[in-house]
Parts: sequence; structure tokens; C-alpha cells
Amino acid sequence: MTSGAPATTISTVAWVDDAIEIIDQTKLPAVCEVVRILTVEAAIEAIRRLAVRGAPAIGVCGALAMVLGLDEARPTSRADALLVLDELVTGVGSARPTAVNLSWAVRRVRDAAVAEPTPAAIRERALGEALRILDEDREACRLIGEFGRAELAAATRILTHCNAGRLATLGWGTALGVVYAKAAAGEPVQVFACEARPLLQGARLTAWELMDAGIDVTLIVDSAAAALLHSGRVDAIVVGADRIAANGDTANKVGTFGLALAARHAGIPFYVAAPSSTFDLATLSGDAIVIEERPADEVRGWQGHASSPGEVAVWNPAFDVTPHALVTAFITDVGVLHPPFVELSDSERGTRAR
Amino acid sequence: MTSGAPATTISTVAWVDDAIEIIDQTKLPAVCEVVRILTVEAAIEAIRRLAVRGAPAIGVCGALAMVLGLDEARPTSRADALLVLDELVTGVGSARPTAVNLSWAVRRVRDAAVAEPTPAAIRERALGEALRILDEDREACRLIGEFGRAELAAATRILTHCNAGRLATLGWGTALGVVYAKAAAGEPVQVFACEARPLLQGARLTAWELMDAGIDVTLIVDSAAAALLHSGRVDAIVVGADRIAANGDTANKVGTFGLALAARHAGIPFYVAAPSSTFDLATLSGDAIVIEERPADEVRGWQGHASSPGEVAVWNPAFDVTPHALVTAFITDVGVLHPPFVELSDSERGTRAR
Repeated sequence: MTSGAPATTISTVAWVDDAIEIIDQTKLPAVCEVVRILTVEAAIEAIRRLAVRGAPAIGVCGALAMVLGLDEARPTSRADALLVLDELVTGVGSARPTAVNLSWAVRRVRDAAVAEPTPAAIRERALGEALRILDEDREACRLIGEFGRAELAAATRILTHCNAGRLATLGWGTALGVVYAKAAAGEPVQVFACEARPLLQGARLTAWELMDAGIDVTLIVDSAAAALLHSGRVDAIVVGADRIAANGDTANKVGTFGLALAARHAGIPFYVAAPSSTFDLATLSGDAIVIEERPADEVRGWQGHASSPGEVAVWNPAFDVTPHALVTAFITDVGVLHPPFVELSDSERGTRAR
Repeated sequence: MTSGAPATTISTVAWVDDAIEIIDQTKLPAVCEVVRILTVEAAIEAIRRLAVRGAPAIGVCGALAMVLGLDEARPTSRADALLVLDELVTGVGSARPTAVNLSWAVRRVRDAAVAEPTPAAIRERALGEALRILDEDREACRLIGEFGRAELAAATRILTHCNAGRLATLGWGTALGVVYAKAAAGEPVQVFACEARPLLQGARLTAWELMDAGIDVTLIVDSAAAALLHSGRVDAIVVGADRIAANGDTANKVGTFGLALAARHAGIPFYVAAPSSTFDLATLSGDAIVIEERPADEVRGWQGHASSPGEVAVWNPAFDVTPHALVTAFITDVGVLHPPFVELSDSERGTRAR
């Protein structure tokens, strides 16, 4: 296989015959299984158990779940339909708390659909808006990739964390979008992937999708990153994001903060790649971002194989917050944003807020 | 169980009926199995596969393996015995490269034994010296614990990495010696344990031995440490060491460097607890420390359960080097050493070199 654009089309989330289809990412890389989701409850459960994950992907899944919700409720009047939409915004939008894309996407579907006069038109408009979000994410990934390729023209050795690739988005990814854009342009690129304990999205998903694309990838345990960066074998770090506050503080997979500290110590640039939908200008700083804490059993072992005394106490935050001062720049679909971020976000507020 | 000194006597390494007995630490915490080691080859293999691990413990195991080697070779003259000892210094001393305690211990046994006139006397002296190293380590742990308790009198919430406790030493540990000393004195103490991927010594061993002692322990994935330190829930970090260069640069379990960076950013003191035998004054700085790289399969999954595409490339260093500038102080059996370390080690060179 030659290095280049991804060889496989991955339908992370799709709308097929009035249902959501996702790849069950908990089973990768052993099995690539497509699951049909027929109910809102199943969609919420799929998001909670990380069968579908990645901020952009759960945004699209949540948007499509709004349509499933209307189909289940079968509202007979416009007023009923609006009540259903409001309930769905709350129920689906809170399936996971940290990624802003989820609540942003369900509100966007609701806000579009409420303009319509009948339940049927509301359903049609909700589906149209959800599919528009899906298409926009694909295009945002492409733009992030191209902006990132220009910004990182001199960087060939990139370290990333968790998975911000095809499996996290509807396109070729955010952080990995930069990698795929380089590969598609025939430029040399090599990736170091942190495994991302406890659920190992880096090992299971990033390694899998990069190998599928024929891109050179080397796996490390998360705690080896500081030594790797110090060794001079990495040109840049590029990670995704789950929520970016107005001041640039960035919530992303737990471990991102430590990577940013190690990058700063080693003098290596640290980039966050994310679509506009990940910027949450209503949240002023990282202190206000709710960090999801996940079950202890994720840390007590690996897929049911215990690695600790069973009853040990655990602290298991899914995300951490990287202070904006550690971010070299944000690679977005509207361009590369350099510090100072507060001033930049003020001037861009009109175009970014949706 | 009440909090206090360790409830269980753990014979990490022992000399019983002319053989080495170790706890096979690869099987903890599921099973606590004692294995008898009858040959040098078996001792080297036990060290290599981490059935016995921890810098002080592998030093003692290596020292006792010198006696096994003499018993296997049955030298008939003093000259033969000295040749055997030299071969053992090379063979056993290089079983793992990074922890200086191993090569230090085997050389110490050899250097003591060569003074004797007959094969029988050489064997007796070698055993005596190995058992002396064992006893000294137990006492060094006690002293480290007491010095650390005084130094950390105001700290109740301690984060540690990997395992530097009863299972890594012949006493109550180095980093955990400080914890046990606090508990034994009736002082409040709470531990956060990083799990230490890939082999999870923190999850498997530190959690197990602290719970056994009735000490409050909370497990985290390694990459959650930066967020934990930033949250204000940790008073101090205490880790062990595998080799400390003359300038204070410290090789320890991979991930230690990142912890030190996160501690510095959060303004939390970062301590290294180690016996004198871990200081290697012949190595001027961390750049000269050989870092062991271990098999890729350790990272590709967990005890045979794959978490990545099987053929993925891996970089798996067992240790990293923390620059001395990030170390608040060394807690040793001869006292607490504060910076500047180069000057201190110059003045102490005479007493420390053995």
C-alpha cells in the first residue's frame, strides 16, 4: 500500500433507510462492525459507551438522533413536535457533557426545524439540517487539513493523542486531517500515536486508520511522550478538541495537558485542530468546562481483564483542559488562529457563533 | 484493617535452602506466587521478564545469583572461582541495563569475595556480602522513610508512579517507604498511584500493597496526572529511581519526566526517594544513562489481549530521564539532598562511592 489519501471510506456515522448507522468503535481494531441505531435511547447509549465518539462525530449522531426522536414520538401537531424537539435537545444533548459539538448540533437542528409549519415539514427540515451538519463537517475537515498542511509545511514527524481522525469525524479528521492532507499531497509524514488509556483510542483507532491509509505510525504509551519529545524525533504535536473556550483554553482527551507541557519544555509547537463548531464562545475559560468522569472499571483493567485489585478507588476523568498559553495555534476550517486568542475570538465572534 | 505499617511481610527476594525465592510479580495482584530460582539463567530470566523488579530488589537478586553461579560452576581452585565471578559480573550485571543497583551489587559481591583464599571461602563470602546488601537495603528503606517523613511533614496527599514500595525493595520501599513511615507514625496519608503502562506496576503492585496495608489509595491513568496536580489535590510527588547521575539527572520508570514537568507547572514539590546504591557518580549526567527498550508486545495489548493492530510499530522505552532542575530534593538513606546537586555530590563523593 502506498502512502496517500485514506484508502478506505469509513462511514463513521450515516443515515441509511431512516436509521443511523455507525461503526461500533468499541470493537475496533478486531472487528469493523456497522450497527443500525433505530431509537433515541440506542443513540444515547451508543454515544455514552463510546461506540461512536469524537466531538464532531457525536455531534452528527446527536443531530440525526433528533430525527429518530421525531419518528418515534409521531407528533400530530406543530406544538407537539416542538415539545418533542425541546425534550430531545435536553436528552440527546446531555448524553455526554464535555464535547460542545453535541449540544451545538442538537440545538441547531431544533432551531432550524421550529420554523416549519407542520410535523412532516419539521421532520424533513430536521433531517435536512442534520445532513447539512454532516456535510459541513466533511468540508471542515478538508479545510482544516489544507490549512494545517500549509502551517506545518516544514513538519514531517507529528505526534497526536487519542483519535481525531476519520473515526472521530465525518471527513478525514481534524488532527489526522492535517496528516492525510500531507499524504495526499505527496509530502512525507510520519505519526507517533499516544495510546490514550484507559480506552486506548490511539492504539485501537488511530493506529488502525493510519495503517489502513499506508501512513507510517509508531505507537507509544502515553507517558513516553515527554521522553520522545525531548529526544528530538517530533516536529509538532497536533491534537483535536472537544470544547474550546473563548480564551482558547482547550478541553480534549485526558493527557493532552501533559503533552502540551512536555511540548513547551522541548520547544516543540503544539497545535489544536478543530472545526468552528468546537469553539464555545459562551464559555469564557477552561475553568467553566464540565469534565466528564467515567466509570472506574475503565481504569481497573482492559476489556474485562483486571490489572488492579478489583475494589481499588479510581479517578477517571475523560478529558483535561490545556491552558491557552500552551497552544501554539488553532488549525480551524476558517484558518489558523494564532495568539492572543481572546482578541482574535472577539473579532471573529460574529462569524463563528451560530 | 487500620492504617499503619504494612500488615503483610512480603519476601520480595529471599535466600532459602541454597536457592533464591521471589514473588513472581508478573502474576500480581491475581496470585501471590513464590518461585524458587535454582540457576543463574533462571535468575537472569526472572529479572528480564520483571518477575522481580525495582532497582534495589534486582540488585539483591543479582547479588544472590552470584552465589548460584558459584554453586553451578563448582570451581576447584581460587583462580577458577575468580574467573567464574568475573563472568557472572558481566552476565548477571547486564540482565537489565538501566538500574545501576544491579551492576553495583554484583561488583560488590565479586570485590568482597576475591579476597578469600579458597573456592569454599569465596562462596561463603559471596553469600555473606549478598545477604549484607539485602539487610542494608531494608535499613536504607527505613531511613529513607524517616527522612522523608520529616521532610514531608506537611504533606498528606502524595502522588507516586510505578512501584517503589515493598515489592521493589527488601524493606518497606523508597517512595512508599515515606508513605509507610507516615502511616506507622499515625500521620494521615493518602496516595494517588499512576498505573504505569505498559506493565501497570502502579495498578498491579502499588495499589495492591497499599490496600494490604490499609492505606487510602486512588488509581489514575498516567496521563491524568497533569490534571490531578493542577486540581490542587496533591501535596507532593514522591517517586523511586533506577539510576541517579552525578548531576542529579534521574532515570526512573517512563512517565516520571512528564510528572516532574506537570509538578513544576502546578508548583508542587517533586521528590526522588532512593538508597545510596542508586547514585551513579561515574555517570556525569542523564545523557549518558542507557535506557532499556522493551518488546513491542508490551504496548500492543495487555497480557495477550490486543489493543492495537497486531503489526503496529512501537517505541517502548522502560525509563526516562528527569533533568535535575525539576527535582526538589532527593530523599536518601544518608539524608535529604537539596540542590544544587553537582556541588553536593562533589563533597559527598567520598562517602557515597563504594
